[in-house]
Amino acid sequence: MADINARTELKVTTGPIRGSRKIHVGEHRVAMREIDLEPSSGEPPLRVYDCSGPYTDPNATIDIMAGLPELRRDWIRSRGDVEEVAQREVRPEDNGQLGPDRSGGVQPFPNVRKTVLRARPGANVTQMHYARKGIITPEMEYVAIRENLGREQLREHIRDGQDFGAAIPDYVTPEFVRDEIARGRAIIPNNINHPESEPMAIGRNFLVKINANIGNSAVASDVASEVDKMVWAIRWGADTVMDLSTGRNIHDTREWILRNSPVPIGTVPIYQALEKVGGIAEDLTWDIFRDTLIEQAEQGVDYFTIHAGVRLPYVPMTAKRVTGIVSRGGSIMAKWCLAHHKESFLYERFDEICEIMKAYDIAFSLGDGLRPGSIADANDEAQFAELATLGELTQIAWKHDCQVMIEGPGHVPMHKIKANMDKQLEACGEAPFYTLGPLTTDIAPGYDHITSAIGAAMIGWFGTAMLCYVTPKEHLGLPDRDDVKVGVVTYKLAAHAADLAKGHPAAKLRDDALSRARFEFRWRDQFNLSLDPDTAEQYHDQTLPAEGAKTAHFCSMCGPKFCSMKITQEVRDFAAKQNQSADAFLEADKPVPSDVEAGMAEMSEKFREKGGELYLPAAGK
Amino acid sequence: MADINARTELKVTTGPIRGSRKIHVGEHRVAMREIDLEPSSGEPPLRVYDCSGPYTDPNATIDIMAGLPELRRDWIRSRGDVEEVAQREVRPEDNGQLGPDRSGGVQPFPNVRKTVLRARPGANVTQMHYARKGIITPEMEYVAIRENLGREQLREHIRDGQDFGAAIPDYVTPEFVRDEIARGRAIIPNNINHPESEPMAIGRNFLVKINANIGNSAVASDVASEVDKMVWAIRWGADTVMDLSTGRNIHDTREWILRNSPVPIGTVPIYQALEKVGGIAEDLTWDIFRDTLIEQAEQGVDYFTIHAGVRLPYVPMTAKRVTGIVSRGGSIMAKWCLAHHKESFLYERFDEICEIMKAYDIAFSLGDGLRPGSIADANDEAQFAELATLGELTQIAWKHDCQVMIEGPGHVPMHKIKANMDKQLEACGEAPFYTLGPLTTDIAPGYDHITSAIGAAMIGWFGTAMLCYVTPKEHLGLPDRDDVKVGVVTYKLAAHAADLAKGHPAAKLRDDALSRARFEFRWRDQFNLSLDPDTAEQYHDQTLPAEGAKTAHFCSMCGPKFCSMKITQEVRDFAAKQNQSADAFLEADKPVPSDVEAGMAEMSEKFREKGGELYLPAAGK
Repeated sequence: MADINARTELKVTTGPIRGSRKIHVGEHRVAMREIDLEPSSGEPPLRVYDCSGPYTDPNATIDIMAGLPELRRDWIRSRGDVEEVAQREVRPEDNGQLGPDRSGGVQPFPNVRKTVLRARPGANVTQMHYARKGIITPEMEYVAIRENLGREQLREHIRDGQDFGAAIPDYVTPEFVRDEIARGRAIIPNNINHPESEPMAIGRNFLVKINANIGNSAVASDVASEVDKMVWAIRWGADTVMDLSTGRNIHDTREWILRNSPVPIGTVPIYQALEKVGGIAEDLTWDIFRDTLIEQAEQGVDYFTIHAGVRLPYVPMTAKRVTGIVSRGGSIMAKWCLAHHKESFLYERFDEICEIMKAYDIAFSLGDGLRPGSIADANDEAQFAELATLGELTQIAWKHDCQVMIEGPGHVPMHKIKANMDKQLEACGEAPFYTLGPLTTDIAPGYDHITSAIGAAMIGWFGTAMLCYVTPKEHLGLPDRDDVKVGVVTYKLAAHAADLAKGHPAAKLRDDALSRARFEFRWRDQFNLSLDPDTAEQYHDQTLPAEGAKTAHFCSMCGPKFCSMKITQEVRDFAAKQNQSADAFLEADKPVPSDVEAGMAEMSEKFREKGGELYLPAAGK
Repeated sequence: MADINARTELKVTTGPIRGSRKIHVGEHRVAMREIDLEPSSGEPPLRVYDCSGPYTDPNATIDIMAGLPELRRDWIRSRGDVEEVAQREVRPEDNGQLGPDRSGGVQPFPNVRKTVLRARPGANVTQMHYARKGIITPEMEYVAIRENLGREQLREHIRDGQDFGAAIPDYVTPEFVRDEIARGRAIIPNNINHPESEPMAIGRNFLVKINANIGNSAVASDVASEVDKMVWAIRWGADTVMDLSTGRNIHDTREWILRNSPVPIGTVPIYQALEKVGGIAEDLTWDIFRDTLIEQAEQGVDYFTIHAGVRLPYVPMTAKRVTGIVSRGGSIMAKWCLAHHKESFLYERFDEICEIMKAYDIAFSLGDGLRPGSIADANDEAQFAELATLGELTQIAWKHDCQVMIEGPGHVPMHKIKANMDKQLEACGEAPFYTLGPLTTDIAPGYDHITSAIGAAMIGWFGTAMLCYVTPKEHLGLPDRDDVKVGVVTYKLAAHAADLAKGHPAAKLRDDALSRARFEFRWRDQFNLSLDPDTAEQYHDQTLPAEGAKTAHFCSMCGPKFCSMKITQEVRDFAAKQNQSADAFLEADKPVPSDVEAGMAEMSEKFREKGGELYLPAAGK
């Protein structure tokens, strides 16, 4: 790591992920990684999905002060439906009015654009709009190549999984991507003002994605560490990142993050709007909120969480809950509704919001402001009332050809998870579901990445398209760098477990490659094929630090004398020495012992003749 | 911690678990813990299940050199069916013949018994035997009290869960325990030579239990740290502990562990038998194995893993697997069968093994020697062939009134987990299932406590009675003390998630108490109610270390200015100020906004009149 020179005052981690090689596939140079295996394996490199951007490419020049290259610049402009306009002037309140400056002395992003893009009057620049017109965009082509991974290598793939009605193709074509987006079953969140992003799809017929939350709060954190966390999160596999900053420097923090992010960035605009009114929810107005949407749209935010489903009549439904309203955005809107005793302006102005979204291609992430914050409140009236409204709003957004995903809970015991997925699919017309966990118990603060990974893996299997990570600090404090990594890797494994269970054609390739490496004591291959090679190797070295132990045909669990893996090799060798196929060997042994006393004695004799002591010498492979 | 004086040269952790108080309930003084909540909560103490033994009791005297008091001594002797016999002499080979002494200089356990107990000739001392004769033992009574926890406190419990055919009672009576044991649906593993143990039940109509594995290997570890790990594992919630030691000092290590363990101890006797023949599997004989069973039975091992289902004809079925045979015991027996080309002596001598088990009341843990070691091998022919044999052996054991549980996989993708449970219930007549994980993907070494907690929670929900923990070091090295804790807490939360989903009457009490504490900013209650109060508090303090922050009505995520929990309180206060019940409040708001413009204006007016700015002052509670 850190072997790429980066011209920056902000420190980020660069350099290849251990054991893998950055590759670029096809004319769009779709970024992926390949993991080379030991020559002794006789196996081709394994291709894996890669979210880490240029930071892991030894051939890239990283300049945090300038931002990433604009991959999509020409694609966006060549469609002829955008115009350049002067960027809205940054105002003091955009960076917060309250509290001390905790930016750590980092200046505003130096390379701010003077002009930004928006749709020409009357134009609609959403991927859904293009898709519905039958246009296959370069973004869709990029996604198709990206999602296929090593599927070409699969010769005789036998689909093994339970997909609960998903329609995962054997091979992803650009036309398939277009069709999924046109139907609203998938989205490609990519604001025309975030041309640095590498297109990715969120939908249940694609690989399950994960999101990592970062962001300042009024109490802690600073800009430099948030940029570092973003780069760190995508290194370990975050498909999108949400900047949930509150307090000071919200605008500047976001600019640094966007200009340096190859993954879509999501925000909750009401957070910033609230800062602009000094934190008093009831002082929020449509004008302030609208202005915030424009501000963030011009910066390039790819999806907005909009809590338009928190309607006035639903607020009292939360009064009997154990934990009431736990969504920040949800409670802001609930307070506003209550104070004014009026319907939410987000709900009433939803068409106007759609007009903004489609002028930049910002995807909706319809917020679950009334999600349960405890096992006790799961699947209650308030939650499902809001979900029904989100379904209604989805239809409105789709009329505008706006891309939509739906946010989901939260805290849900295992037996109530499936109902969430089923109701979401029904209420929201198969729009992608994007859930936080859910946590399957409330009693393990400090371990909520795990309580929630259980729920996340399950709901991912059932059809959720993106899983919002939870870190070990959930409910207790702001995650630091280490927490971000643990959260990302935990969610990556949960998403992968879901892909496996859904029967995703490419998923099992990696499990099988790693298991073969494990069986054959190719320790380095085992580390390199894992989601976190550094930790795997470090754990191994804690008990067997010697360099030789990495090539040894044993491990610290059983030691060199006895090893079950070795014995299995003997079973195979025995079969091979009989000069039989495994099938024939198996056949020969099929009769139950009582029938084959004579045959057994003969086999035993053969074993002794040909093998004797069959332990393979450690260097024998 | 460490505030109890312990006379010992081995260091173990003693003292109360933070925030909880040891209590002893009823005439049998059943050990539990109670967590006292802040007086402001107005809530009674929460009673929780406790595996930690006298080590967390400030009134207990801990003497590792002498061992624990013999809780069950009189119960066992008063039944009049045991006799005292001289203990089998310890032989040099019992402590291993090979490799250097890695005991760390710890002497043999100083307080070794001269005589041990066994059933009088013709007698059967198993709990199943008593149960089938209609006898309710003190052990069953102990279990009944222990399992009930706070169920008495539940006034109007509405069962909420999906139990897949389990028969969880609202209240556990001693007669219920007896009946479950008589039917073979539950076991109480408690060797008559381990009178130190606190009785506990493993069965799908009881709380889901977890096991922690510890033990020396030939490469690393020492006796002192294994005793420490045992005490540490039960502190965090291990219901049973398996001593999987190999290499040197196996006999002495086990003696130290047993004499100091209040939880049942399990072993895999073939491991020690293998050491006795110098690690050469084909040199194993029935006599050596039988002698090892007696040796361990006399020491007090509570359950034995016996891989009697690894039959000769099944061995070739593993030749085509990606990871072959990964069970140590399974591969030992496979090698033996292959070398001799004979049926397994464990299978052929199963009746004789039963005779030994019932003379001491050792429970069978019928080993899954052919469990899958990778996603690729899950649910294959070899695995299910063995399972069918385990079912056959269960019936034989039950004829002897021997207690039985069945071990299960392993590595299984989510969509294949349920089939494991269903087949086990059918093949093994509802004998308790005891699974390792299963791991739901192979690609995350270093995080396999999590890949497996996903599978463990699910299979626990489906009906598995005990979950064998997996630590972060799985596949990479031997777990240290920290790994043991992470493994135990992870499995405790998975087991609890399973209890919740099954609808166990007492499970949700703890989630609800913690969630109420969270909502009301009772930080200390939130820490104390969690599975790991130390980590929860430490994480909180990383961002807000000041003492005042533990009583503050905010947290570091949102800061003091804005808090969604506070807003919910305002919703409630608003309802209360209307002098209405929540229901009436809800009713008043039910009409959709368009119908009630006038009513809304009125409500809004009331809100302003009675509340104005409703933020509660931080000290206001």
